[in-house]
Amino acid sequence: MDIRELKECVCDANLALERHGLVVLTWGNVGMLTDDGDAFVIKPSGVSYDKMTPDDMVLVSLEGKVVEGRNRPSSDTPTYVELFQYFRSRPDSAGLRGIVHTHSPAATAWAQARREIPCLGTTHADHFFGPVPLARPLTKDEVESAYEQNTGRVIVERFESGNLNPVETPGVLASGHGPFVWGKDAHDAVKNAVALESIAQMARDSCAIWSFSLLVANDSSDCADIFAIPSDTTPRQFFLEDYVMKKHYQRKHGPKAYYGQKSPDEAK
Amino acid sequence: MDIRELKECVCDANLALERHGLVVLTWGNVGMLTDDGDAFVIKPSGVSYDKMTPDDMVLVSLEGKVVEGRNRPSSDTPTYVELFQYFRSRPDSAGLRGIVHTHSPAATAWAQARREIPCLGTTHADHFFGPVPLARPLTKDEVESAYEQNTGRVIVERFESGNLNPVETPGVLASGHGPFVWGKDAHDAVKNAVALESIAQMARDSCAIWSFSLLVANDSSDCADIFAIPSDTTPRQFFLEDYVMKKHYQRKHGPKAYYGQKSPDEAK
Amino acid sequence: MDIRELKECVCDANLALERHGLVVLTWGNVGMLTDDGDAFVIKPSGVSYDKMTPDDMVLVSLEGKVVEGRNRPSSDTPTYVELFQYFRSRPDSAGLRGIVHTHSPAATAWAQARREIPCLGTTHADHFFGPVPLARPLTKDEVESAYEQNTGRVIVERFESGNLNPVETPGVLASGHGPFVWGKDAHDAVKNAVALESIAQMARDSCAIWSFSLLVANDSSDCADIFAIPSDTTPRQFFLEDYVMKKHYQRKHGPKAYYGQKSPDEAK
Amino acid sequence: MDIRELKECVCDANLALERHGLVVLTWGNVGMLTDDGDAFVIKPSGVSYDKMTPDDMVLVSLEGKVVEGRNRPSSDTPTYVELFQYFRSRPDSAGLRGIVHTHSPAATAWAQARREIPCLGTTHADHFFGPVPLARPLTKDEVESAYEQNTGRVIVERFESGNLNPVETPGVLASGHGPFVWGKDAHDAVKNAVALESIAQMARDSCAIWSFSLLVANDSSDCADIFAIPSDTTPRQFFLEDYVMKKHYQRKHGPKAYYGQKSPDEAK
Repeated sequence: MDIRELKECVCDANLALERHGLVVLTWGNVGMLTDDGDAFVIKPSGVSYDKMTPDDMVLVSLEGKVVEGRNRPSSDTPTYVELFQYFRSRPDSAGLRGIVHTHSPAATAWAQARREIPCLGTTHADHFFGPVPLARPLTKDEVESAYEQNTGRVIVERFESGNLNPVETPGVLASGHGPFVWGKDAHDAVKNAVALESIAQMARDSCAIWSFSLLVANDSSDCADIFAIPSDTTPRQFFLEDYVMKKHYQRKHGPKAYYGQKSPDEAK
Repeated sequence: MDIRELKECVCDANLALERHGLVVLTWGNVGMLTDDGDAFVIKPSGVSYDKMTPDDMVLVSLEGKVVEGRNRPSSDTPTYVELFQYFRSRPDSAGLRGIVHTHSPAATAWAQARREIPCLGTTHADHFFGPVPLARPLTKDEVESAYEQNTGRVIVERFESGNLNPVETPGVLASGHGPFVWGKDAHDAVKNAVALESIAQMARDSCAIWSFSLLVANDSSDCADIFAIPSDTTPRQFFLEDYVMKKHYQRKHGPKAYYGQKSPDEAK
Repeated sequence: MDIRELKECVCDANLALERHGLVVLTWGNVGMLTDDGDAFVIKPSGVSYDKMTPDDMVLVSLEGKVVEGRNRPSSDTPTYVELFQYFRSRPDSAGLRGIVHTHSPAATAWAQARREIPCLGTTHADHFFGPVPLARPLTKDEVESAYEQNTGRVIVERFESGNLNPVETPGVLASGHGPFVWGKDAHDAVKNAVALESIAQMARDSCAIWSFSLLVANDSSDCADIFAIPSDTTPRQFFLEDYVMKKHYQRKHGPKAYYGQKSPDEAK
Repeated sequence: MDIRELKECVCDANLALERHGLVVLTWGNVGMLTDDGDAFVIKPSGVSYDKMTPDDMVLVSLEGKVVEGRNRPSSDTPTYVELFQYFRSRPDSAGLRGIVHTHSPAATAWAQARREIPCLGTTHADHFFGPVPLARPLTKDEVESAYEQNTGRVIVERFESGNLNPVETPGVLASGHGPFVWGKDAHDAVKNAVALESIAQMARDSCAIWSFSLLVANDSSDCADIFAIPSDTTPRQFFLEDYVMKKHYQRKHGPKAYYGQKSPDEAK
């Protein structure tokens, strides 16, 4: 893919964010690496989706310098630089070439609540192997100097300290901010961002149902088990069984995948 | 209906899932039996709705073998095989020829919460005679061997152990997964899937209102009854009266049905 | 308006229900009185909105007999008969000529929760003078004989026992069922149904915010008042002040109305 | 911009409210000052969005008198007069020339709950520097005489008593009513109204997630921290750190802004 094609692809992926209802106003961006991986194309900062064309996209080096483009790149560009450098630094994640950042409402509600999204169902397990992780809040110093770069660094820190694999866990919540999501290319990253928003909605609504189940009195009648939950319930029992999570993830990913029409996904 | 017409019908029903907002990405499928009932047509695995044509549909035998089609069938195919075999094995449910599986968000939130949806209103009773049941979680062994087939088996187990009639209860929640829904044909199954999603939304929101009613102090003033509910409330009192449920179900179904323009529904 | 024009008007109002997102499948209907008030035009039972034409509408007498039309009228027809007869029996409500019944999701969630919707804000007061009332559940006998007629009778009972004026309170929740709403004509009734759904959504969400405010510890810091509410809070303090409710209702309705372009609304 | 252009601009901004899903029926209006700032153009009262043209707009003086236009102006006009006079009376806010009032559902749910929206995330901080404030409820006297004018006065009172800057805090919740929002021009005010609705949705959903976290038992296992929150939690710990709020606000606003393509925003 030459630079022109890459700009078209990234522009189209940005427009897909709006089509999927993940963004309002200009709150989202997509970036994707060039074929040689030394630079990436990203959305310009603060430009409306209805006026955006491939020519507006900006080519930025992996050092964060603008290489080509008439516009200022997204203000989140230094976060992209950190993430792309990290993916390239790991042999297992060098195939990750697309990144998406949005403030999609349900995922952002979890990021604001500063809770990881535990794996509650197979929709989640089809896309994320384990919880959607939460990066720690930045310190005052980290915010006041190189804020966007540090946003990327605490994400990397979360993956390193938690021994997480960015291929198996294709996204993260930035505390008090919102999701960063990635994939094999720009459109794969958008697909994972769509999945994350749906996962976040479903988990939020499962929690609302459980809130009622915990509040209502637990009687001994045969219907109690439908609604009521004992008040000493602990979080662990709400998680999807590990063996179901593993099964679902592996149906779609890895050497034994059997979902879809293509040959098994070799990325992992 | 010949195979060509059946493929068109199943393709159209799959597209209707997206039109009704029940699916994002490729998370849903529809299948329907042939006229002689020895095989069924189903959506291919992982194909986008915007690219799907009748020629992409796959014909699969009731033993689960691909009979015709250039694509791999949905990975949920073995679940469909179990369900179609079960419906055909019961004299009362042999008329059920269409099945739908989605991850529609509200129904999936209940499946993840692992709660049956009790019948709280007439919208529910118009479509499901009694709660929307929940199939038990699979064991590790059941997941690791023949997962999709076992997904169908625990659904059958739930109907048999609970003495449920698949005509009166046209769907089920798979624990930690999502809904499977059926009907007389592919479009009737889609209609029931639309109804289930709406039922799940309304029940979720009734629960959220009750959560507040249980939390707020119950005072003795005349307005208390509007909002507050005593904290020793038990689930039973939130259910629709059995006689209303029966009335509504029978308005639409069975020999005395008087809803709609057609002759009474004889399926039951 | 002759019968032909009335059928066009009622057909259009039925289609407006779908346009406003108040119905899925065929769950809603609109009816409107003829000029002489001895009969009304109503939607046929169970017909899809995408196939409905004015010719499908059914003309029904105030005794509930089909006067004209090739279709069976809505199964809710006897409820409409009761309501139209009631409105005509009161001098103050004879101007109410349109009725809407839907299962719009938020209003139905309140009907299922069997809670009246208290007046929490001016959006509510602009349309309903006081709470959206709840009709009592039907007894077994009332359900088993003349169910739809009795659905209308308990609504009338609620208005009579509560000394409510159907002009000031243009709708009601049927317990475990959903809203019935009315207005000066078919489109005015649709407008009130749209307003009720919005009111129900906002009240549901205010309650969800309060649930959190009641759960979080009430500390003495200056921020506590933003979020936390003392746990001995009673419902009364959440209601809109009576004088605000009165002001807003009277801005839009009655002899001193000054909202909109037309002469003051004389219906009241 | 001459009066004709201003009417086109205000009409277009009113239609944008509907396009962004902020209004149903006629529940919203936009107004904008003329170039010399002695008058403003505002939506007529109670006119449908689908019939509105620039010629329907009304020109009103800063004393609240209709200067030009065949229609009655919005019933909220006296509130606009108070706000525009206030902005012009402060040197720091004289650049605020557009105002929007809606009953957008999530923001109105907070206004009805009579809670300020604390700053929980960067989406909020990008648009509002600090909480979205709540104006106090009006007294009976204030409602019964000059209601709409007093609605504006308690907003001004909230800004004065709280030492708030209308440029940094471009909106407010009227208790039991809904949001008033403003900006540099009509479209900037609409943009802030869109942002506020999104902020209100996310904050509502973060609270729903926290409600569950507060209800579920806090055990000592390693997963507890994902979900459970100790019941002595106080509101303060849910707020975005002040230094993050400041950073995000200043990325977009003020002399050091570096978001978007234009020169730094000098309004502040």
